[in-house]
Amino acid sequence: MDTLEVALGARSYPIHIGPGLLSNAALLAETIDASQVLVVTDTTVAPLYLAHLQAASKEGELRVHILPDGEQHKTLASFAAIVDEFVAGNFHRDACLVALGGGVVGDVGGFAAASYQRGIRFVQVPTTLLAQVDSSVGGKTAVNHPRAKNMIGAFYQPAGVIADTDTLATLPPRQFAAGLAEVIKYGLILDSDFFAWLEEQLDAVLALDAEALRFIVRRSCELKAAIVAEDEREHGRRALLNLGHTFGHALESIGAYDRWLHGEAVAIGMMLAAQTSAALGWLGDSAVERIEALLTRAQLPTRAEGIGAERVLELMQIDKKASAKGLNLILLEAIGTGVVTPAPNEKLLRGVLEAGLSGG
Amino acid sequence: MDTLEVALGARSYPIHIGPGLLSNAALLAETIDASQVLVVTDTTVAPLYLAHLQAASKEGELRVHILPDGEQHKTLASFAAIVDEFVAGNFHRDACLVALGGGVVGDVGGFAAASYQRGIRFVQVPTTLLAQVDSSVGGKTAVNHPRAKNMIGAFYQPAGVIADTDTLATLPPRQFAAGLAEVIKYGLILDSDFFAWLEEQLDAVLALDAEALRFIVRRSCELKAAIVAEDEREHGRRALLNLGHTFGHALESIGAYDRWLHGEAVAIGMMLAAQTSAALGWLGDSAVERIEALLTRAQLPTRAEGIGAERVLELMQIDKKASAKGLNLILLEAIGTGVVTPAPNEKLLRGVLEAGLSGG
Repeated sequence: MDTLEVALGARSYPIHIGPGLLSNAALLAETIDASQVLVVTDTTVAPLYLAHLQAASKEGELRVHILPDGEQHKTLASFAAIVDEFVAGNFHRDACLVALGGGVVGDVGGFAAASYQRGIRFVQVPTTLLAQVDSSVGGKTAVNHPRAKNMIGAFYQPAGVIADTDTLATLPPRQFAAGLAEVIKYGLILDSDFFAWLEEQLDAVLALDAEALRFIVRRSCELKAAIVAEDEREHGRRALLNLGHTFGHALESIGAYDRWLHGEAVAIGMMLAAQTSAALGWLGDSAVERIEALLTRAQLPTRAEGIGAERVLELMQIDKKASAKGLNLILLEAIGTGVVTPAPNEKLLRGVLEAGLSGG
Repeated sequence: MDTLEVALGARSYPIHIGPGLLSNAALLAETIDASQVLVVTDTTVAPLYLAHLQAASKEGELRVHILPDGEQHKTLASFAAIVDEFVAGNFHRDACLVALGGGVVGDVGGFAAASYQRGIRFVQVPTTLLAQVDSSVGGKTAVNHPRAKNMIGAFYQPAGVIADTDTLATLPPRQFAAGLAEVIKYGLILDSDFFAWLEEQLDAVLALDAEALRFIVRRSCELKAAIVAEDEREHGRRALLNLGHTFGHALESIGAYDRWLHGEAVAIGMMLAAQTSAALGWLGDSAVERIEALLTRAQLPTRAEGIGAERVLELMQIDKKASAKGLNLILLEAIGTGVVTPAPNEKLLRGVLEAGLSGG
């Protein structure tokens, strides 16, 4: 087991990574560390892993709230149902909420933990690659508004994260690939060696080699934790983590959150960011080709057939990360070096989108 | 104008106190300091003071959301309606929410500001005595759950507080008295000189003398700010501010939040805390008499006729401040010296309640 520390002063917490952690009852009990515990999970994950948490807790100590699976349940109504569960169980301020599952469970559960009695203990047990390398680290919690994603939430750090890499074996291949998009992102914005390692070892990753999984989760969490420690509330450098996300959110919206998984839209968005960087003369053609090759080998889409450049441009203007100061984009100066920069002029962007969305 | 600083590191903020502040357009503009502004107020306060905020802002810059007046609207539905307003107005992360009104507006508005896009700028413009001396200072925001008060919320500090003491002239006398209960509370738990000053100058306060109002708001905010700076999230000493509140919450619940205003229930609760302290031998009879005399002169109730001791005891067990470690109470070692202490045995409490609720 690897243990990393996210360094946030009084809000610092450990991330435990490795195989078999859900069978480590002592680790679970020590991390949860509360006499009242509510596990929030979903209909897909509960039959697979809930028993592990039950085995690690005393008889009758665990209350369970099971959300329907899917992003469409990441709502204020799901949040309110969790609070109802707390009130019905007469939960105190020193209770603990455990989020067992993917990003939706972690985001809704985290916002409920942040808000119940103005904040109770919160433990993340992510079971998808996306949640292990991204959403369970960094303290962003939220639910969606019917008109925009992640509009209602809190920055709220967990007391600990337990990432059992064995759970990745039960993940559908398409979801695994979507998580890999975020892994590749860390290499692109922060670490060219990690990107090169992924080029070399991707076959082992795709074969779910235990050592390879441990390494990609660990390195991704290390890179994210360093950025979060520097800029917890995204006033500056943390925005780097949004590489591909401004383009990606526009695509997700056009696809009605149905055509692409989040990670797939981010993969296409990262390609568009690479192509924009190339159009500005920052990135060479060979780097763009390396990025496309790795995404493709990871079973990720790199183009969005049939999507119009104008609609993407329009939606990018209302991306929630837009500020009064105008639209920023994350671009690449090299593989391993992301930068936060004001968006280039619309003409250049339109050119990139027209070429990049559907053609070569 | 007096200006205090609440010392919370990067989250420090000023509280401006004095007459005529709502006519100080420069102060308002400088404190709000955002290009997108949503004012949250209620049906009682809007006709009285909304024009002042409109006068201080540029044409068309201000969006307004008016809640119905009353504690029964301090709900997750009111919170959601404010978020809808933000989304409809395409509000960015650097927008500002201004809460203009009493505690309900500040608590609901504050939780919406804390949660919209995980936190936007927030300014409190309290217009009741209770809000000026208590709820607008310290960063507690919340909405009620149908089954328990303040169950859903956040610790979220404002960027600034503007307490215009002229607004107290439009407050119904019963609400003014309810605010005085919290003022007297600060003297009881922290400052015997302030308590003595109130004994001497209460007539000037009740006559709304400008200098007396400025002083009680300032001194109350100073005392509260010092405690909050020490213990922002109520892990310890901040609990002192709950003097009278455990008893008070039980009474409010029995009275269906209708028989007593919050401050009135707290006044009765403070008498019960004083009587409990006396029963333990901590406080002399003359001190208890001074407390009862001051509360009575302030037009506050000191007894709860017709309420049974058993029902109060029962409700105190589920007070939200209860923890797994058992019930704590705030008691008095002297006028000016509050202490957080495990509740004395039930027999002693029952005796105090039987004597104190309805008889002399």
